[in-house]
Amino acid sequence: MSRLAKIEGQVRGLQKMVGADTYCPDVVVQVASVTRALQEVAVGLLTDHLHNCVVNAARASETGGQAGLGEVASTIRQVIRL
Amino acid sequence: MSRLAKIEGQVRGLQKMVGADTYCPDVVVQVASVTRALQEVAVGLLTDHLHNCVVNAARASETGGQAGLGEVASTIRQVIRL
Amino acid sequence: MSRLAKIEGQVRGLQKMVGADTYCPDVVVQVASVTRALQEVAVGLLTDHLHNCVVNAARASETGGQAGLGEVASTIRQVIRL
Amino acid sequence: MSRLAKIEGQVRGLQKMVGADTYCPDVVVQVASVTRALQEVAVGLLTDHLHNCVVNAARASETGGQAGLGEVASTIRQVIRL
Repeated sequence: MSRLAKIEGQVRGLQKMVGADTYCPDVVVQVASVTRALQEVAVGLLTDHLHNCVVNAARASETGGQAGLGEVASTIRQVIRL
Repeated sequence: MSRLAKIEGQVRGLQKMVGADTYCPDVVVQVASVTRALQEVAVGLLTDHLHNCVVNAARASETGGQAGLGEVASTIRQVIRL
Repeated sequence: MSRLAKIEGQVRGLQKMVGADTYCPDVVVQVASVTRALQEVAVGLLTDHLHNCVVNAARASETGGQAGLGEVASTIRQVIRL
Repeated sequence: MSRLAKIEGQVRGLQKMVGADTYCPDVVVQVASVTRALQEVAVGLLTDHLHNCVVNAARASETGGQAGLGEVASTIRQVIRL
């Protein structure tokens, strides 16, 4: 949550940079930094999910855990953008 | 500018999703979509920069344009995250 | 394995394209396609690993599975290049 | 060219790693490294192209250079995978 609040601030900062006609490459570097911060959030969410759902499901039943893995794979693919 | 305002709204939406304990993979898919939107902004800025700076500099002088290309390459590398 | 053999062939094809002075943007599009194929391999390996190691470890013991998750997270970060 | 030859060797190395049942996360890290090497090739090709085509075209005529930029933008998008 606090990471996302910080990212929201960074996006507002980007708007100011564009509004102030900041030199393009400098804005692009800043955009890349926000992108990186968002992907950190995605990895954190994925890891929490693996922790809470897949591992626990694997403990709960013989087939549990497996079921969630297909979804995890497709989520990883979306983060990597395949 | 309007793209960035939309992205700011999307980041606020992400905070609501996390606050409402939305199912993790659904949030990750949304994070990936915001990342993509930011990279569209980066490509737009880079193209404007190539248009305004590199092409015009190439017209202005023999060595102009060249100078800016090293910077463009390094900016692309940051967007790709090399 | 067969995917990697195909990728090896694609990299050889890239060398031929460059040797034949193929138009740069066409080569770049082909490079992007090989990159995508490699990331598919990475996702496949990661999913197998989650299946074989994390899920099974979670079944084997109370703390198993957890141990492997930190490593999975750091592997995902390397694939995303954070 | 020599970079691509090295990448071909790395892909052959990956096949050996998989054939020898190397620990999955170690193979994934290696896959990520080959992906990075390929993207370096893409950035190099793009920069050469900007140098040879866009800058020279901009010098040759009033509208030259501009024409190539749309293509460059779409090539960058493919490398970033938008």
